[in-house]
Amino acid sequence: MAAPTVTFQDYDIVATAQPGEVMLDVAHRSGVRIVSYCGGQGSCGQCEVIILEGAVKPKDPARWREEVTEDGRGRRVLACQSVITENITVEIPAHAQAEDLTIRDVETLTGELVDLSEFLPLAPLTRQFALQLPPPTHDDTLSDLDRLIHCLAADHEGLAPLTIDLSLLRQLPAALRENNFQVAIAVTDTGFTPKIAAVRPSRASEKSLGLAIDVGTSTVAVQLVDLQAGQPLAASMRRNGQISYGEDVISRIVWTQQHKDGLVQMHQAIQDTINEILSHLYAQHDVSPEEVIAVSMAGNATMISFLLNIDATPIRRTPHTPAASVLPVLEAQQLGLATHPQAAVFCHPAVSGFVGGDITAGILATRMPKSDQLCLLVDVGTNGEIVIGNQDWLMAASCSAGPGFEGVGIEAAMPATAGAITNLRYDDETDTVEYQTIQEQPPRGICGTGLVEMIASLAESQVIDRTGTINTDFPSKRVRQKDYEAEFVLLWPEETAIDEALSIRQHELDDLLRSKAAMLAGITVLLSRLGLQAEDIKRMYLAGAFGASLDVEKAVAIGLLPDIPRERIHVVGNSALAGAYLTLMSRQAREEAKAIVASLTYIDLSGDTNFMDEFVASDFIPHTDLSRFPSVNI
Amino acid sequence: MAAPTVTFQDYDIVATAQPGEVMLDVAHRSGVRIVSYCGGQGSCGQCEVIILEGAVKPKDPARWREEVTEDGRGRRVLACQSVITENITVEIPAHAQAEDLTIRDVETLTGELVDLSEFLPLAPLTRQFALQLPPPTHDDTLSDLDRLIHCLAADHEGLAPLTIDLSLLRQLPAALRENNFQVAIAVTDTGFTPKIAAVRPSRASEKSLGLAIDVGTSTVAVQLVDLQAGQPLAASMRRNGQISYGEDVISRIVWTQQHKDGLVQMHQAIQDTINEILSHLYAQHDVSPEEVIAVSMAGNATMISFLLNIDATPIRRTPHTPAASVLPVLEAQQLGLATHPQAAVFCHPAVSGFVGGDITAGILATRMPKSDQLCLLVDVGTNGEIVIGNQDWLMAASCSAGPGFEGVGIEAAMPATAGAITNLRYDDETDTVEYQTIQEQPPRGICGTGLVEMIASLAESQVIDRTGTINTDFPSKRVRQKDYEAEFVLLWPEETAIDEALSIRQHELDDLLRSKAAMLAGITVLLSRLGLQAEDIKRMYLAGAFGASLDVEKAVAIGLLPDIPRERIHVVGNSALAGAYLTLMSRQAREEAKAIVASLTYIDLSGDTNFMDEFVASDFIPHTDLSRFPSVNI
Repeated sequence: MAAPTVTFQDYDIVATAQPGEVMLDVAHRSGVRIVSYCGGQGSCGQCEVIILEGAVKPKDPARWREEVTEDGRGRRVLACQSVITENITVEIPAHAQAEDLTIRDVETLTGELVDLSEFLPLAPLTRQFALQLPPPTHDDTLSDLDRLIHCLAADHEGLAPLTIDLSLLRQLPAALRENNFQVAIAVTDTGFTPKIAAVRPSRASEKSLGLAIDVGTSTVAVQLVDLQAGQPLAASMRRNGQISYGEDVISRIVWTQQHKDGLVQMHQAIQDTINEILSHLYAQHDVSPEEVIAVSMAGNATMISFLLNIDATPIRRTPHTPAASVLPVLEAQQLGLATHPQAAVFCHPAVSGFVGGDITAGILATRMPKSDQLCLLVDVGTNGEIVIGNQDWLMAASCSAGPGFEGVGIEAAMPATAGAITNLRYDDETDTVEYQTIQEQPPRGICGTGLVEMIASLAESQVIDRTGTINTDFPSKRVRQKDYEAEFVLLWPEETAIDEALSIRQHELDDLLRSKAAMLAGITVLLSRLGLQAEDIKRMYLAGAFGASLDVEKAVAIGLLPDIPRERIHVVGNSALAGAYLTLMSRQAREEAKAIVASLTYIDLSGDTNFMDEFVASDFIPHTDLSRFPSVNI
Repeated sequence: MAAPTVTFQDYDIVATAQPGEVMLDVAHRSGVRIVSYCGGQGSCGQCEVIILEGAVKPKDPARWREEVTEDGRGRRVLACQSVITENITVEIPAHAQAEDLTIRDVETLTGELVDLSEFLPLAPLTRQFALQLPPPTHDDTLSDLDRLIHCLAADHEGLAPLTIDLSLLRQLPAALRENNFQVAIAVTDTGFTPKIAAVRPSRASEKSLGLAIDVGTSTVAVQLVDLQAGQPLAASMRRNGQISYGEDVISRIVWTQQHKDGLVQMHQAIQDTINEILSHLYAQHDVSPEEVIAVSMAGNATMISFLLNIDATPIRRTPHTPAASVLPVLEAQQLGLATHPQAAVFCHPAVSGFVGGDITAGILATRMPKSDQLCLLVDVGTNGEIVIGNQDWLMAASCSAGPGFEGVGIEAAMPATAGAITNLRYDDETDTVEYQTIQEQPPRGICGTGLVEMIASLAESQVIDRTGTINTDFPSKRVRQKDYEAEFVLLWPEETAIDEALSIRQHELDDLLRSKAAMLAGITVLLSRLGLQAEDIKRMYLAGAFGASLDVEKAVAIGLLPDIPRERIHVVGNSALAGAYLTLMSRQAREEAKAIVASLTYIDLSGDTNFMDEFVASDFIPHTDLSRFPSVNI
């Protein structure tokens, strides 16, 4: 009997299933990208598809569900629970299609932070030099390596001494002779003795490119940079594929402990995520992987451990110490990145298991350590972090904000890519929702910025009360019951690009409020520990899940940020990515990044009883104590 | 039909042959070591064995020879030419058994040169430190790497900063925790930033060992050293297995060019040779490979290229430039050495394709660059090298002396291991030969020292004339014809441990004379280029093939060295090995080794017409111009 096939309608793909294989795996093997947050456990419900012809067998009857579509054209099933036993034809609804990668406007991601003027002269992590070496003669019998170093040192003061790895030394004699001693040399700033990273034919067309990467727990963002010009060329982002193994760092560490080869799989997931983004960026910009010779990474200690294939278990256990704070400059091939194999990899140093390289990168990008004014950096990621200080001192704290504003666990949410709703307002008089989307594409979901505006608008129009509870008596058909809980329909199916409604459900609102409560409580308690008030903050940077388009007024209105003069608040977007860009381009920035680690003190809020009290008081819109938000009128 | 077997008598080994396999390969696979200099080409005749039962098939009829033994018990054949087609039983005569490795008295190999007193305080290439780190606590959340570096730097000034490879960093968290933060750290002096090479359980019993290795074209010598005490523990040597691919560096480079994967095979051969010596040394001294954490290598540019798997072709071609002069400190696992995988490997730098690390190591060991007297170093290896100079200048030349004094191509010769004849004198009045052997074992062959004494004695007793020609009318049955040429029987079969006569044949004497002529001509021409006479030399070092037991008088008598006052001549044995020992133990020595390269000038004698004239004139005992050897009376 021939093996059964799966025909993916609209994809022109017919794939053969292996015995016992589920549809999700067949799809992944065939290049059909179906969303799955739970890693095929049958719990997230993201991989719901429609079977048009044929039937499947339930994998786990306890998790099985099957529902005829409204128009009767097929049956909805979970791809991860459908074992293929006969030929079938399926339709992948738009909501289940993994989002296309979007090339983002670079400035939208990192806004005002990518200013290199403080870091001149530039010295990229890896520099490329075109050399015409004098060929050896009877009177000039210098060895190949000495010839190269002498020539380089003659033109570029301070570059020698230089080291080289044996693998490259093995290629050197042929590389020089095949190119008539005319070559391009890539030299990496290791932080110690510079290293020759590559010897290649000297071609005028060859680009010299680098990557700045923010390895976020929920979202990975990559910026492609022209190293010679110091110019960002493009940026792209997508969900961190590790989400299949757990939403936050703790659950992922537990997963690696409980699974054989768990660390290797976790490493593979982030490697795949980055390489998928790269493949997309390369295709758009006609880049060959060999042209990419430097990478700067910012990520929390757990993300960097996974990326480097280092056991992260000690980060989970008290006292939460990572293997290394300042990491050596590595080679891309050690991490499996799709770049030049010897491309240098700089990782932003972590202060501890809680304050990672993403935060030190953000601190670098905001220039807090150079400021004579008191600054506060709030980074809303899967884990929320707060840094306070100036040129004299720096203190950091973290609070388990949860990934809500990154869209994880919110069905209508999506990363800030094309079609994501960024601005949203509900008009209760006309019962309509006004919105804007990224790149003005038809709406597919709501990004973090949109979620903040949504809460503010629903509160203002009293669809939800100050505890975030949906008023089920609200006079609009948008308020309805689904699966025994209240939801508010933002857009009807016919208004979206995915032919499904975009709604927000009660438990999702609760999650978002807890996230913002954790952030605000963290800020309040950290300030109070230092004997400070919110009004003492002269500059406040809001970074992380929100793009630079976030309405500051709304962020204060829902009580995500304290009520301080709005002109002091700067929404800076992805400050970790901005920091990685700076260290990619500047030796001074790399030195500053390491210095930040030495000067930063971590304050542990986890056992602080004031924190729990503040958290409970902050789980309101904007806060139980309205006197703290005099300018807010919701 | 069952596969045919080969029974190796006296070995208790019965091996199954693969279809078409020759006996030599079956033997090697089965651990029966049969000598082969030509690599199974059927030309060297070393692998002659005796078939006692059964028959074999000739591999190449043109190279086939078969001879019934005198006692009729079997037939002599070449193992490399015998294809196995039926069950056979063979006897491996003593001469065809690869020599056992011999643990040599350390002082015999490197004599007076292993004096560390000029290099205090010692700083081995890799140092081991036992550390008890404070475990991380709530108030001390330093990362694992920082914890280690801080603790080390607190006790040992100047050690930080330190680097670490990703592979070791991956092991660090578990290594610290499994050993309750009590560990032994190995730190390598890379010449740049020191590197953490190993983190291990801190056990009192663990030794900290190093290796000094002379990678000679013909012979490889290894010294095992206690790094903490600076004490050589043992030494061992054996033939370089690359001899199967050619006697000298040029023929081996050609071989790598003409064979697919030739470089890999050449690399494998030297790797195997070193590892066989190591396995022998380890067994004798109860050493575990993991205890060996540092290696210092001295070898010519071609040998080091092969060891490092670097194409040596450019060394063969004008202008003979190696890939690198000063090499980075490598890891043993990159070379496949049977040591701790991260053991540091220092390679003595080469000046050029002709003046390799073996010579710069010898220069270091003799302390020439520190001397206020004019010194001359003569290194008699497969390629002969001469260095002249003092604290102000250094010049080097090379002359193709050939491997005669290393015993290659001389049937009765062997390396200077147990049973080798070192001192030898023929008494023409009693027609007897007096001799001494290493470790007073029954004689198995003659080493380089013995060959010099043999020539001097045969010339003195007029068995050979001043051209080295055997007097076939000499009244002794020791002078006889074999295979159409004259030979002189040194020992009869019943006097040797191999049950065969030890003889010297006419063409072998011619080879040895040419070797000594090349050396003497090189010295004479180099001196003359500099306007110097032999008597200007205040210290002359004779290094290389000869042990420290060589009789200086005899070396001058045969015209290997010029006729200068004997007290100026120092037979220093293996100066390359002595240099490797010094750089293994001393940072100052490593710095000096690199400085030598910068101060040394190479003089090319290859096109010098005076050299050819001098060579011809020196191809006599001691020389055509006896006025140059006034003190010699042969």
